[in-house]
Amino acid sequence: MAKKVLIVFAHQSSGSFNAAAKSAAVEVLAAQGCTVEVSDLYAMNFKAAATAEDIKGDVKDAEHFRYQEETRLAWEEGRLAEDITAEQTKLSEADLVIFQFPMYWFSVPAIMKGWIDRVLTCGFAFTKEKRYSQGLLKEKKAMLSFTTGSLESMFSSTGMNGDMNVTLWPIQNGILHYCGFQVLPPQVFWAPSCASPEARTAMLEGWRSRLQGLLEEKPLSFISLDCFDPKSFQLTPDVQEKHASQEFGLTVGIHLGKPLPPQNQMKAGC
Amino acid sequence: MAKKVLIVFAHQSSGSFNAAAKSAAVEVLAAQGCTVEVSDLYAMNFKAAATAEDIKGDVKDAEHFRYQEETRLAWEEGRLAEDITAEQTKLSEADLVIFQFPMYWFSVPAIMKGWIDRVLTCGFAFTKEKRYSQGLLKEKKAMLSFTTGSLESMFSSTGMNGDMNVTLWPIQNGILHYCGFQVLPPQVFWAPSCASPEARTAMLEGWRSRLQGLLEEKPLSFISLDCFDPKSFQLTPDVQEKHASQEFGLTVGIHLGKPLPPQNQMKAGC
Repeated sequence: MAKKVLIVFAHQSSGSFNAAAKSAAVEVLAAQGCTVEVSDLYAMNFKAAATAEDIKGDVKDAEHFRYQEETRLAWEEGRLAEDITAEQTKLSEADLVIFQFPMYWFSVPAIMKGWIDRVLTCGFAFTKEKRYSQGLLKEKKAMLSFTTGSLESMFSSTGMNGDMNVTLWPIQNGILHYCGFQVLPPQVFWAPSCASPEARTAMLEGWRSRLQGLLEEKPLSFISLDCFDPKSFQLTPDVQEKHASQEFGLTVGIHLGKPLPPQNQMKAGC
Repeated sequence: MAKKVLIVFAHQSSGSFNAAAKSAAVEVLAAQGCTVEVSDLYAMNFKAAATAEDIKGDVKDAEHFRYQEETRLAWEEGRLAEDITAEQTKLSEADLVIFQFPMYWFSVPAIMKGWIDRVLTCGFAFTKEKRYSQGLLKEKKAMLSFTTGSLESMFSSTGMNGDMNVTLWPIQNGILHYCGFQVLPPQVFWAPSCASPEARTAMLEGWRSRLQGLLEEKPLSFISLDCFDPKSFQLTPDVQEKHASQEFGLTVGIHLGKPLPPQNQMKAGC
C-alpha cells in the first residue's frame, strides 16, 4: 500500500546540503509511490513560540496560563490556531515523519523545536495514560535526519562531544518515542560543510540508497511501557534483572539499547 | 565585589510558578547587592528563528546561506540585529546567567532555544579553538532552573523517563560548558503543578535558601579540553585509564560525573 510521508524541514537555504537531503527523500520516496508532503518551516515563517495566541477564543485561566492544559482543551474543542491544525492534519495522515535539519547546539533548531512544542499537543499526540509504547502516534514511524558541524570522531563515547546516542536520547526517547512513534535509526550526515564535493555526493548517495528500504527498516528498541510499574513509574524488578547483564547495563544504557549501526553514519572527508 | 546576574526567563504568565522562582531569584540576589537583569522572552516577543534577518546589510552568500558563518562575520563587523546585540551586551556584563523555564519536551521551550541559537554567536561565545574549558565565556557561571511536568521518580535511572542527568547532558555540556560557562548544579522543581500550595511554597523556600550561597557554589565537573588529543578529539589514553575505574566508568559516565546532589532536587507532594 502506498505510504504517506511528512518531511519537517528546517533550513533557511534551498541551496543547502539539508535541502539536497530533503529533495533526495522526496524524489526517492515518490518514485516508490509514496505521497510526500514537506513542511518547510522557514519558508512558512513557522511560529516557534508557544503562546496564548495558539488558542482561538478565550483561554481558561489567563492569569495562571498553562500552555499544555490550555492547548489540550483547545484541541478537544477545535480551537487550536490554524497553523497548528494544518500540521496536525498532515501528521495524522502520515505513516512516516522525517525531521530534516542541521543540528544546532546539540539539538534541533528553535524553529523545529517550536513545531514540536506546538504541534504535538496533549490529547492529540499523547495523554498521561497513552504515552511511550502506548503513545497516540504509535502506528507511525519517525526519524531524525541531520547534519552536524562536528566530525564523527568528536561524537564518539571517548570523543570531545561524547556519544551521539546520548545527545539524541532526549529527542528520540523524550519526544518521538514519548508520542509512540516507532523511531527509525537516525541518518547522521557528519560535517558536510567540511567535506569535499565528492564526499558530499557520496553522503547523499548513501542516503538515497537507504531511502529505498527505509519503510521496511526495523525501529530502534525502547523499553515497553508495561515494563514500568504503573504506580511508581519504575522498571519492575524482573525487567531490571533481565537487563542488568546486557552490554549497556548501567542506568541510561538500559534505555538506550544498541549504538548506531555504522551504515547510518555518513563520514566526512575532513 | 557586587556581581551581575542575568536571568533568561521563559514563561508566558506572571502568575506562574516559574515567574515566582524568577522573582525569588531577583529578590534574594538583589538583597545581596547583586545587579539583576531579566530577559523576559515572551514579554519581549523574542524572535526564535535563526534567519538572514539577524544580519544587517547583505549576507555573504545568500544562495548557500550558512547561519553560523554569516553571523560570525556579522558579529565581527558589528552587523548583528539589535535584539541579538542587546542580549550579548547583557551577557557580556553578567557574572552569572540563570535560565528559568518550564521543561518542554525534555528541553528548553522553543523561544529559549531561539535565544541560545541566536545570542551565542560563533566568535562571541566560542570559536573552534576556544570552546569547552577554553570557551570564551569561561569567566562566567550559568545554571538551569526549571520545572518539570513529571514526578521525580519518573526521572530516575530506572524510571520511565530515565536519568535526568542524561536528559540535561546535551544542554549542560553541549551548550553551557561548550561556551566555557562554569555550570552550577541545576535547580529542579519537580512537578509543582501537581503539588499542594504548601509544597510549592516549600520548593520556593528551598530555592531562596540555595540562592543565599549560590555564587559560592562549586560548579559541576567536566573533562578539561586539554584531556583530549587536539588532532583526534579523543580522550588521551592516560585520562581514559584514570576514569575507567570510576563509578560511571562507561561512555557517557566519563563525562557526566556525579549525579545531582539531593538538595537541588525539590520534591512535589503528589
